[in-house]
Amino acid sequence: MVVNRWGTGRTEAFSDGVFAIAITLLVLDINIPQSDFDDLWHAIVHEWPAYLAYATSFLTVGGMWLAHHGIFRRLRYIDARVMRINLILLMFVSFLPFPTRLAAEAIHNANSERVAIIFYGLTLFIISALAGVLWTQVTRHRELLRDDVTDEEISEITKRAAPSIGFYAGATLLAIPAPRAAAIVYLVIGVSGVLLARGDTIGPREPEPV
Amino acid sequence: MVVNRWGTGRTEAFSDGVFAIAITLLVLDINIPQSDFDDLWHAIVHEWPAYLAYATSFLTVGGMWLAHHGIFRRLRYIDARVMRINLILLMFVSFLPFPTRLAAEAIHNANSERVAIIFYGLTLFIISALAGVLWTQVTRHRELLRDDVTDEEISEITKRAAPSIGFYAGATLLAIPAPRAAAIVYLVIGVSGVLLARGDTIGPREPEPV
Amino acid sequence: MVVNRWGTGRTEAFSDGVFAIAITLLVLDINIPQSDFDDLWHAIVHEWPAYLAYATSFLTVGGMWLAHHGIFRRLRYIDARVMRINLILLMFVSFLPFPTRLAAEAIHNANSERVAIIFYGLTLFIISALAGVLWTQVTRHRELLRDDVTDEEISEITKRAAPSIGFYAGATLLAIPAPRAAAIVYLVIGVSGVLLARGDTIGPREPEPV
Amino acid sequence: MVVNRWGTGRTEAFSDGVFAIAITLLVLDINIPQSDFDDLWHAIVHEWPAYLAYATSFLTVGGMWLAHHGIFRRLRYIDARVMRINLILLMFVSFLPFPTRLAAEAIHNANSERVAIIFYGLTLFIISALAGVLWTQVTRHRELLRDDVTDEEISEITKRAAPSIGFYAGATLLAIPAPRAAAIVYLVIGVSGVLLARGDTIGPREPEPV
Repeated sequence: MVVNRWGTGRTEAFSDGVFAIAITLLVLDINIPQSDFDDLWHAIVHEWPAYLAYATSFLTVGGMWLAHHGIFRRLRYIDARVMRINLILLMFVSFLPFPTRLAAEAIHNANSERVAIIFYGLTLFIISALAGVLWTQVTRHRELLRDDVTDEEISEITKRAAPSIGFYAGATLLAIPAPRAAAIVYLVIGVSGVLLARGDTIGPREPEPV
Repeated sequence: MVVNRWGTGRTEAFSDGVFAIAITLLVLDINIPQSDFDDLWHAIVHEWPAYLAYATSFLTVGGMWLAHHGIFRRLRYIDARVMRINLILLMFVSFLPFPTRLAAEAIHNANSERVAIIFYGLTLFIISALAGVLWTQVTRHRELLRDDVTDEEISEITKRAAPSIGFYAGATLLAIPAPRAAAIVYLVIGVSGVLLARGDTIGPREPEPV
Repeated sequence: MVVNRWGTGRTEAFSDGVFAIAITLLVLDINIPQSDFDDLWHAIVHEWPAYLAYATSFLTVGGMWLAHHGIFRRLRYIDARVMRINLILLMFVSFLPFPTRLAAEAIHNANSERVAIIFYGLTLFIISALAGVLWTQVTRHRELLRDDVTDEEISEITKRAAPSIGFYAGATLLAIPAPRAAAIVYLVIGVSGVLLARGDTIGPREPEPV
Repeated sequence: MVVNRWGTGRTEAFSDGVFAIAITLLVLDINIPQSDFDDLWHAIVHEWPAYLAYATSFLTVGGMWLAHHGIFRRLRYIDARVMRINLILLMFVSFLPFPTRLAAEAIHNANSERVAIIFYGLTLFIISALAGVLWTQVTRHRELLRDDVTDEEISEITKRAAPSIGFYAGATLLAIPAPRAAAIVYLVIGVSGVLLARGDTIGPREPEPV
């Protein structure tokens, strides 16, 4: 029988590349046209939605990278299903600069503000949900996990991942009546994701034989 | 006699970088002009060809990365010919964002739709054919392959690679009478590439002495 | 008790990715419009502020990468606080292309020159200060450092890091009366950072058990 | 005495990142305006200078990456001088997309063609010369080289590197009377660089103790 498995090394490296590039491309969308250079302080301050969107997306992707790291460090190998979910997750992570840019540009425009922030929130919700699906997939196939991963660790990671999906859903609903309040909530969720990220409480893991 | 060989490590890392960057740059080409912000939902929905093109190219490159990974993991070392073919392959992979953007922009335009999709398909066909050439080169020089690679594995990889070249040729011919149908077929081939990707059915391979 | 620690490997790789991408994106902001192509030598020379800004930011990020490397090579593991500070540091490093572009575009414009250069200097000051905070955090928690790191090494790294924060503060103050002089000072600080960078005076360090 | 040395690992990884990103960003400069979509085949063909410039720069950077790889694989460690030269080399490699874009845009314009191609050639000449300086620096400080590197290997690498500097100088002089001929010569030099690249004729090298 041919088993369909991958080692974790090159997948982690590829995922890290996508995370690092998506996070760094965000800055390309911050821009001040030459026509606003006559009062540049004012123009720089006026760009605050771009900085807010930049910081929110940067910290959200940063927290997601920490969570991703936390999952992959606990894997013995990757099966075809995890590989596919991971690829879909990366597809949405590297899509994020687009809704980020929309949200930054729309916030000064009464007509489009609500739509742009809902669209941004939906993307964050999908990313968060896909990370949840990835982790659920792993916990349902315990043979993917290293032997030294305890039930306690698993339930703790689950406890941390689950609420963030709910928070993104809630904030996106909040964006319907109050888009700016929702924008603040997305930032708070992103910051919390970084603050709550847990290290590798276990020893360094070498890739196990596949 | 001086033998012209490379280890696989740094070449894999460099290739991974190019794959990860090409895949992430695709998002830069999705854009909504400020003038369409008054009806932003409509503008977001109207961008569907851009999402279709993004998903198709992302999954195609993702599947290509999996196939590339599958080939390189089976190599003992890289000779000059494989190095050159790989570089040409990477040149076309990192070219892909250009036809992707053309296809996304042209699909609302009756005059250019056909041309853009044929051009996109030709690029995919070339990428697919170059991957085939790379694999053929490897199988013709069995000393490039690790000792534990079986004839069965080789013929299985060959069986998977060959049809996709044919499918790309067929879909590109289909684009002449029916460009939109061809666009769907490219997406289907890309998704199949990911679904059919096979893991490393063999143990982890350390770079062998060159 | 669950300890919150990370190994240094994947964090270094992720940071390296962000440094390499931020440094490479800088070139995207150098541009000559087609309308200036009739006298292209003149247009190329006229872009000197863009080259100055490019070289300054490239060498500053390059020196920062060397300093970052120097710190991380001396760590046994990363705790949650260092991880967060590092993420904030990377957020400002990948923000740098924006003020770089502003400074390059504004230098021909009497009204905006001063503002753009102060804004650029503030960003460099923040990056430099965050690197200082990162190092202070490490030295206050000596258990983060490898056993073979001597007090001498620590005080030498501190002596090198501290002045650059002061120089950036000073140059930014200088930018108020004399923005172009400040621009030269930023370049000089960046070059010095590369020239003064110290290698790993100690043996190669393998990640220690966490 | 404190010795100022670095291991080769993280420097190679950082350099690879810059090479891979610079090579991939080249595609962002190929563009067809919507106004030319009515006759898209014609517009795609009309972009031939962009493809020529893309292929030339891609293969030149690819060959440079192979040469860089060849040098760093032979090093025991990196001293401060090599580190600085490498950083300057990377600064010019990641600058290359700018002259590439200029050359691609200028080739249809009689006034600017000559200037753009000379500027492009000067950049290639500087990159090539800096790689020569890096190698000269290494050969003058034999303690940087691994013990198993033979005098034969050294003189062979030198023999390969030296002519390319001369070819770039010659082609750039040729660009004064005949810019299009020079453009072809740059492509030929780039292709030759890839064809002549030599593998690691020696065994895999682990970083030695610093």
